[in-house]
Amino acid sequence: MQRLKLLEERIRKDGVVRGTEVLKVDSFLNHQIDVELLDEIGKELFRLYGDCNVTKILTIEASGIGIACVVAQHFGVPVVFAKKNKTKNIAGDVYTSQVESFTHGRVYDIMVSKDFLHAEDRVLLIDDFLANGAALQGLIKLVRDAGATLVGAGICIEKAFQPGGDMIRSMGVRVESLARIKSLDEEKGIEFC
Amino acid sequence: MQRLKLLEERIRKDGVVRGTEVLKVDSFLNHQIDVELLDEIGKELFRLYGDCNVTKILTIEASGIGIACVVAQHFGVPVVFAKKNKTKNIAGDVYTSQVESFTHGRVYDIMVSKDFLHAEDRVLLIDDFLANGAALQGLIKLVRDAGATLVGAGICIEKAFQPGGDMIRSMGVRVESLARIKSLDEEKGIEFC
Repeated sequence: MQRLKLLEERIRKDGVVRGTEVLKVDSFLNHQIDVELLDEIGKELFRLYGDCNVTKILTIEASGIGIACVVAQHFGVPVVFAKKNKTKNIAGDVYTSQVESFTHGRVYDIMVSKDFLHAEDRVLLIDDFLANGAALQGLIKLVRDAGATLVGAGICIEKAFQPGGDMIRSMGVRVESLARIKSLDEEKGIEFC
Repeated sequence: MQRLKLLEERIRKDGVVRGTEVLKVDSFLNHQIDVELLDEIGKELFRLYGDCNVTKILTIEASGIGIACVVAQHFGVPVVFAKKNKTKNIAGDVYTSQVESFTHGRVYDIMVSKDFLHAEDRVLLIDDFLANGAALQGLIKLVRDAGATLVGAGICIEKAFQPGGDMIRSMGVRVESLARIKSLDEEKGIEFC
């Protein structure tokens, strides 16, 4: 299992724990974004997946997009982000799947245009968090529906005390999480795996 | 007025015109993203705004985020993206404003945590499109509410036949658009300013 010390240190320094389940990282990862940290994340994910002939990075709006774009620079491949809402500007055929958001307490559809995911693609999934695995599962379905090859997933922060990581790995999917959290506690702080 | 030839050429090659108002660039800018193109955009915006002591890049989810992150690498400053939906994970005080989306046909709130926009910040706004100027106006209000200095806006594609650019410039805001479109026509194609 890989770890990015720099990310762990940043989570310890600037992450805010609420209760035993919520970790806020909005000062550096998903509201305000430290692009130098993203660059280190990109470097590490390229070290892990650089020999896998990745042709496309797939993520989900919104907070995955910035990470995916900086990671994609290291791979020299395009990003595709799954959209949460149908807009006037996506016409034609799309792959869709459903995602249950625990943060927002609802189920939503995600979609990717069939123009941008093909059977010959080798896809690396990128996301900020892996908790219940719902978003990742939704993305995996899009890749499979396209007949593309799923190389694996690159996750910034895995809440290892929630079931998503085990579930996705048990599907035979390679998951590399750069920081894996064993437990969260407002008083005791953050324990990494 | 600045222009980025590479972006104009890409729009000519891969942009899809629908009617006389819609330009789809989802093969390289806002669904699938060409990160090398973003890097050129970042380089050009740094050439234009590099001497303005920018301390923060502000954009709006979702399609602005990738562009903003790559641009921010050139400036060596953090990105903050305004969020469209209140989530459990943003607590505390926020700056808010309202944006009318012509694409989605509705009005929505955007917000930024007060933790990430300060009076001493010098803010560069980044977005993919400038058309009616609604998103940019919403971002400008956030910057002004924070008492921060607005350095200007860096826009990838301005639909110069729509009123946003003139309106924002008439407010005294510096706007640099890397491709300015004079007219769109499904048969005659795209005319740049």
